[in-house]
Amino acid sequence: TRTGFPEIIFGEGKDAEQIISIISSLQQNTNRVLATRVDREKADAIKKVIPDIVYNAKARTVLWKSESEPDFLYNGYIAVVCAGTSDLSVAEEAAVTAEAFGVHVRRIYDVGVAGIHRLFHHLEEIEQATVTICVAGMEGALPSVVGGLISNPIVAVPTSIGYGANFQGLSALLTMLNSCASGVSVMNIDNGFGAGYFATTIHKIHRNTELLGR
Amino acid sequence: TRTGFPEIIFGEGKDAEQIISIISSLQQNTNRVLATRVDREKADAIKKVIPDIVYNAKARTVLWKSESEPDFLYNGYIAVVCAGTSDLSVAEEAAVTAEAFGVHVRRIYDVGVAGIHRLFHHLEEIEQATVTICVAGMEGALPSVVGGLISNPIVAVPTSIGYGANFQGLSALLTMLNSCASGVSVMNIDNGFGAGYFATTIHKIHRNTELLGR
Amino acid sequence: TRTGFPEIIFGEGKDAEQIISIISSLQQNTNRVLATRVDREKADAIKKVIPDIVYNAKARTVLWKSESEPDFLYNGYIAVVCAGTSDLSVAEEAAVTAEAFGVHVRRIYDVGVAGIHRLFHHLEEIEQATVTICVAGMEGALPSVVGGLISNPIVAVPTSIGYGANFQGLSALLTMLNSCASGVSVMNIDNGFGAGYFATTIHKIHRNTELLGR
Amino acid sequence: TRTGFPEIIFGEGKDAEQIISIISSLQQNTNRVLATRVDREKADAIKKVIPDIVYNAKARTVLWKSESEPDFLYNGYIAVVCAGTSDLSVAEEAAVTAEAFGVHVRRIYDVGVAGIHRLFHHLEEIEQATVTICVAGMEGALPSVVGGLISNPIVAVPTSIGYGANFQGLSALLTMLNSCASGVSVMNIDNGFGAGYFATTIHKIHRNTELLGR
Amino acid sequence: TRTGFPEIIFGEGKDAEQIISIISSLQQNTNRVLATRVDREKADAIKKVIPDIVYNAKARTVLWKSESEPDFLYNGYIAVVCAGTSDLSVAEEAAVTAEAFGVHVRRIYDVGVAGIHRLFHHLEEIEQATVTICVAGMEGALPSVVGGLISNPIVAVPTSIGYGANFQGLSALLTMLNSCASGVSVMNIDNGFGAGYFATTIHKIHRNTELLGR
Amino acid sequence: TRTGFPEIIFGEGKDAEQIISIISSLQQNTNRVLATRVDREKADAIKKVIPDIVYNAKARTVLWKSESEPDFLYNGYIAVVCAGTSDLSVAEEAAVTAEAFGVHVRRIYDVGVAGIHRLFHHLEEIEQATVTICVAGMEGALPSVVGGLISNPIVAVPTSIGYGANFQGLSALLTMLNSCASGVSVMNIDNGFGAGYFATTIHKIHRNTELLGR
Amino acid sequence: TRTGFPEIIFGEGKDAEQIISIISSLQQNTNRVLATRVDREKADAIKKVIPDIVYNAKARTVLWKSESEPDFLYNGYIAVVCAGTSDLSVAEEAAVTAEAFGVHVRRIYDVGVAGIHRLFHHLEEIEQATVTICVAGMEGALPSVVGGLISNPIVAVPTSIGYGANFQGLSALLTMLNSCASGVSVMNIDNGFGAGYFATTIHKIHRNTELLGR
Amino acid sequence: TRTGFPEIIFGEGKDAEQIISIISSLQQNTNRVLATRVDREKADAIKKVIPDIVYNAKARTVLWKSESEPDFLYNGYIAVVCAGTSDLSVAEEAAVTAEAFGVHVRRIYDVGVAGIHRLFHHLEEIEQATVTICVAGMEGALPSVVGGLISNPIVAVPTSIGYGANFQGLSALLTMLNSCASGVSVMNIDNGFGAGYFATTIHKIHRNTELLGR
Ligand SMILES: Nc1ncnc2c1ncn2[C@@H]1O[C@H](COP(=O)(O)O)[C@@H](O)[C@H]1O
Ligand SMILES: Nc1ncnc2c1ncn2[C@@H]1O[C@H](COP(=O)(O)O)[C@@H](O)[C@H]1O
Ligand SMILES: Nc1ncnc2c1ncn2[C@@H]1O[C@H](COP(=O)(O)O)[C@@H](O)[C@H]1O
Ligand SMILES: Nc1ncnc2c1ncn2[C@@H]1O[C@H](COP(=O)(O)O)[C@@H](O)[C@H]1O
Ligand SMILES: [Mg+2]
Ligand SMILES: [Mg+2]
Ligand SMILES: [Mg+2]
Ligand SMILES: [Mg+2]
Ligand SMILES: [Mg+2]
Ligand SMILES: [Mg+2]
Ligand SMILES: [Mg+2]
Ligand SMILES: [Mg+2]
Repeated sequence: TRTGFPEIIFGEGKDAEQIISIISSLQQNTNRVLATRVDREKADAIKKVIPDIVYNAKARTVLWKSESEPDFLYNGYIAVVCAGTSDLSVAEEAAVTAEAFGVHVRRIYDVGVAGIHRLFHHLEEIEQATVTICVAGMEGALPSVVGGLISNPIVAVPTSIGYGANFQGLSALLTMLNSCASGVSVMNIDNGFGAGYFATTIHKIHRNTELLGR
Repeated sequence: TRTGFPEIIFGEGKDAEQIISIISSLQQNTNRVLATRVDREKADAIKKVIPDIVYNAKARTVLWKSESEPDFLYNGYIAVVCAGTSDLSVAEEAAVTAEAFGVHVRRIYDVGVAGIHRLFHHLEEIEQATVTICVAGMEGALPSVVGGLISNPIVAVPTSIGYGANFQGLSALLTMLNSCASGVSVMNIDNGFGAGYFATTIHKIHRNTELLGR
Repeated sequence: TRTGFPEIIFGEGKDAEQIISIISSLQQNTNRVLATRVDREKADAIKKVIPDIVYNAKARTVLWKSESEPDFLYNGYIAVVCAGTSDLSVAEEAAVTAEAFGVHVRRIYDVGVAGIHRLFHHLEEIEQATVTICVAGMEGALPSVVGGLISNPIVAVPTSIGYGANFQGLSALLTMLNSCASGVSVMNIDNGFGAGYFATTIHKIHRNTELLGR
Repeated sequence: TRTGFPEIIFGEGKDAEQIISIISSLQQNTNRVLATRVDREKADAIKKVIPDIVYNAKARTVLWKSESEPDFLYNGYIAVVCAGTSDLSVAEEAAVTAEAFGVHVRRIYDVGVAGIHRLFHHLEEIEQATVTICVAGMEGALPSVVGGLISNPIVAVPTSIGYGANFQGLSALLTMLNSCASGVSVMNIDNGFGAGYFATTIHKIHRNTELLGR
Repeated sequence: TRTGFPEIIFGEGKDAEQIISIISSLQQNTNRVLATRVDREKADAIKKVIPDIVYNAKARTVLWKSESEPDFLYNGYIAVVCAGTSDLSVAEEAAVTAEAFGVHVRRIYDVGVAGIHRLFHHLEEIEQATVTICVAGMEGALPSVVGGLISNPIVAVPTSIGYGANFQGLSALLTMLNSCASGVSVMNIDNGFGAGYFATTIHKIHRNTELLGR
Repeated sequence: TRTGFPEIIFGEGKDAEQIISIISSLQQNTNRVLATRVDREKADAIKKVIPDIVYNAKARTVLWKSESEPDFLYNGYIAVVCAGTSDLSVAEEAAVTAEAFGVHVRRIYDVGVAGIHRLFHHLEEIEQATVTICVAGMEGALPSVVGGLISNPIVAVPTSIGYGANFQGLSALLTMLNSCASGVSVMNIDNGFGAGYFATTIHKIHRNTELLGR
Repeated sequence: TRTGFPEIIFGEGKDAEQIISIISSLQQNTNRVLATRVDREKADAIKKVIPDIVYNAKARTVLWKSESEPDFLYNGYIAVVCAGTSDLSVAEEAAVTAEAFGVHVRRIYDVGVAGIHRLFHHLEEIEQATVTICVAGMEGALPSVVGGLISNPIVAVPTSIGYGANFQGLSALLTMLNSCASGVSVMNIDNGFGAGYFATTIHKIHRNTELLGR
Repeated sequence: TRTGFPEIIFGEGKDAEQIISIISSLQQNTNRVLATRVDREKADAIKKVIPDIVYNAKARTVLWKSESEPDFLYNGYIAVVCAGTSDLSVAEEAAVTAEAFGVHVRRIYDVGVAGIHRLFHHLEEIEQATVTICVAGMEGALPSVVGGLISNPIVAVPTSIGYGANFQGLSALLTMLNSCASGVSVMNIDNGFGAGYFATTIHKIHRNTELLGR
């Protein structure tokens, strides 16, 4: 396995025993294991057997790191931006994924389109990020607004939050694909993991030369 | 016919002769006739027979008003807002429709989501309008942004401008229906006429008591 | 917060404790708080802590008003129209929202397309409303019929009531967007709140000058 | 071939020569031949070879009847109802088809939802029809309104007239399938022929016993 | 209420008490009441209060008839055709509805497209029916096959039975709308009631003159 | 290139010169070249340069075979079945493709669902085929009917023939995917080539041992 | 019933008693019965009454074979290929179905697109199969990759595994229908049974002459 | 304007005069102007007025650079990968866009899923790119395959190439959004420009410190 890159388990549809057994076998060869889509009940069962996992209830992730493994492997940070509350779970999945890879993450979770003035307070911080993950449900307009204001790459993640003509996230997905702001690419609906992973592939390259001392 | 309310002709699928004959017969009983969806060729043919029509090439409308009829019938104004160029035709159809009804219109045509700072220069003007028509293609995020900033009613009109996953305006339509900003209602794709008409129904009521001297 | 405008809580996905805590903190700065999408169980739990809320089981809303706050802030009324039974919940959400803003509401809940004669008994009352909210599921034809008969603005709300080729309200939504009656704008499926809010933005402007004594 | 039943040619995608040759060979065995979806140019070419055809330009149909064949074969009539102009072509295809089968047709072509009072003038005439064909584009609400007022069977035909969220007739189709009025069945979009044929299968049975003298 | 025509209650979303109270009040003015979409639990509760109802578990219908009311009001019969098992519930809803109106029904429930030879055994019986209701899920091909073989009107009802690219009955619905056999009209997905009602509107007219002695 | 297997050119979007140049260069290494989606105009231009091509106008294919190459390479035959006229072009593309691979093809082109008795005349011939390609537009029910009657594999090809709720072949595609007859697999809409190729992969294997003398 | 061909029961929506009674009656006339879509609870209930059934929990199938019946009826084998874990259930349904028909099956269950090198280890084994069933969820790219590498027929089965813009398998279905690799045909989403059956219709023909000694 | 960043003109729907006038005015303030979606006819007209533009017919782009401006501004390169022929136009739009920004581009245009061995010859070259743009029509499987083999970020661009169930690129779009390979983000259908721009935002950051001498 590639140095510093965790092994990933897609927890959906796997029971606690299966996840425990996969983590246990992976621990032989890697220093980091991340399991996504794990509810609290399963996480509790896993923790009983592997006590040094960390469960993030918002992100629904289980992370195991070998003791020797440093928290951060790169300089700089990525930003994760959303409007708060309802999209938090996907935003956290993205953030925790990047952190599992050793990347610093800045969470900016209160900047919806409806409260656009709050976005302006954070512009400088967002512009300094290597890459910005922008999570939005409902009409999904946030990445367009952010993309019009900053020049670094934006990874847009539609969420399935909404009702009626939202069609489980289809509305936000189409919005993001049609963004009139340049510099925006799109992940599948609710795919926080994918956004965290993709952002990391960007971050790690351009920070490679400046790797923290390992 | 109700005073001050023009008769409307849907020009699509009607030839010049048909439109001429409808206008001619309507002139007996009304002071204003508006025909929408009329291309220049047809408009030229109509003008030859009825010289006092006004053709708006952007809006693709033909307007006839009896000489005695005043331009404006109400105090105040409505605002028509869009990002410029590609959505102009629909925005103009909306504006011309409202004007055909005797309503003052302020056109604010350069305030896309990608150039959000320009929107801020016009906020005061938009807030003072009775009602704001907000026209947008591509991802259709403009009404959400405007709606988050002002408190008067917004009539959102998606346009069919875009390509790929735009699906002829479906993307913008869904965006507007799912707007997280309150105070936004939605018209059919490309229905500038409907927006101008609907805005007028709002404007005329609340300006009724202050009707210009007729 | 703007005078007379309640703070709004979207109750879906929030538990009773969260809603209680938000209401409590809002009570510091505002005289009206409205929470939507609250089921009876949660409402009971909230009432235990904040006894002076009013729960509307049909609308699934929780309303809190400071004692000093008058019920109505404007002259005139808006009309809420539907065919009865199955669409009632959305119609009530619209009505209660407008009332939360201090607007008089006339409920006309038995005028479906299938019983069109009943509609005619209420035409005068509907025509006198500043704006009419028209709620319909199934094929959603009601706004077209009402819109053809009255000249004031109509806010159409499709509901998700139906089955088969109804597609959870898509049928009614498309019907309303394509209405051949002018003067109809459309909200998202089941968005009674949005309709109540939008209607209020219309009502409050044109009734501003005649504000009830406060 | 069954007595009185014409042979049908679907003209779409066939050239004049093909249609001529099919009609010619059918003339051996049948007294009536109907070709649908024939534009004027083709019709002119056909008429040159088979002069006793009748072309209906609105319906785009070519009808040939042997001289001896009576115009009508049944008592009573069916009604064909639409809002006028844009849906006329489909309505005429339905009407001409029924007439080709020897059925009396009453055309009621000015009764849209937007002009509902005109519908009331024709109710008696519609109620007396064996079956009513109801053609509508845009939002397609007409069959619901008619169906709520009369008790005989209604055959609803959506047309592809409209734009934007009309999706080439999908909106009207869904409206009709979801009609809250009982007694309404639905044909494919623009399928005037199918409606005329289906109405005839109803009409002919229940008028069999009273067949005009042949 | 029209003679012989039952009052109808749409049971979906109504509880036993509501249905009991509606039946009770309708009993004053009508001899027949039919409630659809009633599960066994509700039916049992209703029967406790109104013992002379008849519950059909397959159709999920509750029927009440005054003692004096004859079972059948018309000569002749309609046919209800399906492939058996999975579509039975919709077919029975159609059959029971027609029977509630006093129409004789012949059930032919084992004639799927996959077992087409069985269809041929019943052709004579189907051809003699006034009208044939044809119920099919999966690909919904049955009405096309039946329609190609008989000349009387066919009412096609798609069901939501299927999986994958069936999309809850959309596949069967489109199949039926596109039927290459003439004489087929279509109801909404799973709308057995509508088919039974529509077939009755056809049957009753053409049998009017021969009404059984009442 | 594999013996007996032609090289294939997808002609859509290529001009005559491009096709000529590809054929010419392929002639060096192979005995058979098939170009699909070639209109007559292009075919004429190609024939001027490479006179020994064969153009099939229905299939819109250009076939070149070296003189020495035998017409047929396998025993047995595949059947290509459709309802005639409108689906012929796709059926021919399938047939010509299989023939280009040296497979005998039996064309049975008059057996639509609407004329099911004709199908029965051909059942024996279809049952004897190694594999049957079944082409259908409109509602696409033919493969279900054929599949219910024979036991060999059926390759179903939906065509884009139809209108309205046909949605360019979507209706037929869904019908075939949902077929209640076992032994049916499906190709893309209008993909006659793919069906011919797929059928050949089946035919060639099971006839390998009995290859004609080469 | 045809020799060697099992009778099939679609278990979905049938209870244990129904399945038991169908199996029992089929045992009179056939040596093999396969029931699909049976959960463990039902299977346990069936086994209590008919102890010699075999339940496959992954495939959710119940198979009964008379004692005298040999396991395999044909030479050669078919291959069933998938990426492991999540698509296993559909792959197993396909495999068990083919086995129920007496066909040898080779399972190759760890060759996803993301681990393409593993696919190369199995190419020889896949190429030797008469026909390959290729099961894939998510984006469904596996059949295209396999189809580009081998020359025998491939039966592609999309599964409903995925989330967001997967739309319950629609994504994989479209991928497979549009495959740029020739020699791929497609089954309905999750239709493992259909794929196993279809593959058997291919296998049995070309292996007929070499039938194992019976 | 930001150093080295060209101004962009979306040529669709603009005529030659409009493009000329925009370029001319931009030349005052910037060293690079790129116009996309320009057909040859318009390009010729532009070149007559502004002779130092470069037209790329495949990409349909017009590029103007001031003489003093260096071709390349960064070390390293991005890769643009596609299967050749039909997707070339979108791939070239992506490549030319990145070049307009001063980025080195390596074109790898013959590596479709159907010819996967060719992909392996280029793996090293692709892995060395900062970011890889992967363009694919039809089923759009290429990004999944490439993404499974390399670890740098991949920007996937679906094209509208295909027919039938391709739905103008929807199939490829869904494939890419559902990719089981991590590290893939998605652009709108046919949005080569967006991909080139997005890739540049990645490339420029991580190559900033190593800027070529300017
Ligand atoms: N939340 C997620 N969404 C999408 N893909 C995921 C997610 N979590 C993990 N994955 C992918 O799933 C793979 C592991 O799948 P599995 O072997 O089934 O556990 C990982 O390599 C990731 O590429
Ligand atoms: N551009 C437009 N979009 C939608 N509806 C329109 C438009 N222009 C006119 N209409 C409607 O079409 C009606 C006239 O239709 P017609 O009688 O066919 O000319 C008017 O009363 C308007 O309600
Ligand atoms: N199963 C059904 N499907 C569709 N419509 C129905 C059904 N059952 C009853 N209806 C209709 O629902 C109406 C009664 O609705 P309600 O007043 O809500 O009970 C009847 O007049 C019928 O038109
Ligand atoms: N009519 C067709 N439909 C689908 N695919 C085709 C068709 N004709 C040829 N092809 C495929 O297109 C490939 C050749 O594409 P090209 O290199 O662009 O000419 C062939 O190998 C076939 O797989
Ligand atoms: Mg930007
Ligand atoms: Mg607002
Ligand atoms: Mg009106
Ligand atoms: Mg009626
Ligand atoms: Mg028939
Ligand atoms: Mg079969
Ligand atoms: Mg292959
Ligand atoms: Mg990768």
